[in-house]
Amino acid sequence: MSTEILEVRRRWAHLGTAADLAAMRGLFDQEGERLGMPPGVAVQRIVIASRPAEWLAPSAAGRAVVLYLHGGGYMTGSLTSYRHLAGEFAKRINGRALLLEYRLAPEHVFPAALEDAIAAYRRLLDEEGIAPDRIAFVGDSAGGNLVLTTLLTAREQGLPMPACAVCLSPWTDYEATGESMRTKASVDPVITREGALHGAQVYFSGSDPDRPPVAILDADLSGLPPLLVQVGSHETLLDDSIRLAARAGHHEVETTLEVWPGMPHVFQFFYPILRDGRDAIARAAEFILRHTAR
Amino acid sequence: MSTEILEVRRRWAHLGTAADLAAMRGLFDQEGERLGMPPGVAVQRIVIASRPAEWLAPSAAGRAVVLYLHGGGYMTGSLTSYRHLAGEFAKRINGRALLLEYRLAPEHVFPAALEDAIAAYRRLLDEEGIAPDRIAFVGDSAGGNLVLTTLLTAREQGLPMPACAVCLSPWTDYEATGESMRTKASVDPVITREGALHGAQVYFSGSDPDRPPVAILDADLSGLPPLLVQVGSHETLLDDSIRLAARAGHHEVETTLEVWPGMPHVFQFFYPILRDGRDAIARAAEFILRHTAR
Repeated sequence: MSTEILEVRRRWAHLGTAADLAAMRGLFDQEGERLGMPPGVAVQRIVIASRPAEWLAPSAAGRAVVLYLHGGGYMTGSLTSYRHLAGEFAKRINGRALLLEYRLAPEHVFPAALEDAIAAYRRLLDEEGIAPDRIAFVGDSAGGNLVLTTLLTAREQGLPMPACAVCLSPWTDYEATGESMRTKASVDPVITREGALHGAQVYFSGSDPDRPPVAILDADLSGLPPLLVQVGSHETLLDDSIRLAARAGHHEVETTLEVWPGMPHVFQFFYPILRDGRDAIARAAEFILRHTAR
Repeated sequence: MSTEILEVRRRWAHLGTAADLAAMRGLFDQEGERLGMPPGVAVQRIVIASRPAEWLAPSAAGRAVVLYLHGGGYMTGSLTSYRHLAGEFAKRINGRALLLEYRLAPEHVFPAALEDAIAAYRRLLDEEGIAPDRIAFVGDSAGGNLVLTTLLTAREQGLPMPACAVCLSPWTDYEATGESMRTKASVDPVITREGALHGAQVYFSGSDPDRPPVAILDADLSGLPPLLVQVGSHETLLDDSIRLAARAGHHEVETTLEVWPGMPHVFQFFYPILRDGRDAIARAAEFILRHTAR
């Protein structure tokens, strides 16, 4: 493995050393701050449905708008930990990114995060008056899950679909049944089968039985906008991405799956120190620009 | 469905009306000629291991070289039927394409086509002196199968890998076990489960028991070069592509899968009359150029 990939694996592993959830949230914030902001991206704080959010924009932001839904297992992740990544997306699309700090479990279980994400999308459409064909949803890990459930909920509520969606290492199987949970366990520095099952248990714990969570891999995905899925080959969640792409393709969704060899979970997060992370974001930005062009 | 996609489906279905294999080969040739050559592409006939082949090149051909392995179920397909498509690849990569008329079944069964393809690759490396990092293998349907088996055989023979490989609607499962064989049967205008099984039976009939065909989906794919797989969602072979991408990704191959909604088998073949066909070839050309750049 290269020096840079070893460093990324070390940093992922370090997050796992936290003694408790509060410590892990703190380490995640520290890691995001340490990775630093791309130069020239302005930050503007707003509030959406009582949640903090930020507009991230280069100086001459153009047509495309990203709604960024961060990862962290629905239990961690924040403006601080993800500003660098959402900011880089804004820069690469020469547009704006709205980064949302949705409510987290266990304090707020399903469907709190989903409600916040829908509120953010409605804010873009209604108050900001942004046409849906300019908007791309982007999310990683649990945020990739949230991208998908937000799309399905938006469809259900009769909202227009955005131009496209990008899922980085999305979590799609709450039961962790993918073969890669076993075959990639020894090379994944951060996600274990136990961790994934625990996350599902916490996030869905006590949630409204009349509004069950959407099982993505059993859902009708037809009508979803063009979808790009990027995943590393060194991920226990590899099969979550493959099966998502398979189902979306079967359901007539324009689907692109990219498997990046030797890369760990959400390797794009570490783009300042990882070449493949920068390349993957560049490819995702091309995808967004292609689908948000007039 | 659009007028253009209905026309493509009509043309695919027309090929299936042939009374016998000779008639089908003739219809395939007629269709290729009718689709016409891209302007400005020169054709130079050569012979490789007693097989006819053609160099197709725009006037100022650059660095990249495509070895094009045509489709047709290992029983049909020729220089005449595929010149337009290989020529378009040459034009889009601003390079050259070598189109090979390998031996066909039932006159020549496995591994005849594979031997011819290996001979063509050796010709590029040895006699033409082209560095492997300038070469992309491209093939459709059975030709996509031949791309993969040629890669595996080249690896086995200690030949260097080419820069990348592109499979358009590849045939990867000789037993036709994909779910899409059933779920997409009503929308696929050309490939049936019976046809696929018949093709495997004919091509492998009487082949050397000491040299069994490589079952792609059970093979060790590690060490293969970056792979792009394009497939239509209206294909019984959809799962052949999805499972190929899954296995390649599991085996640490840099893999991109694109599912094109509403598109039939090898829709790129009809690029002169089909927008998505042109777009897909353009995307494949970008992939080739990225991987053959210095």
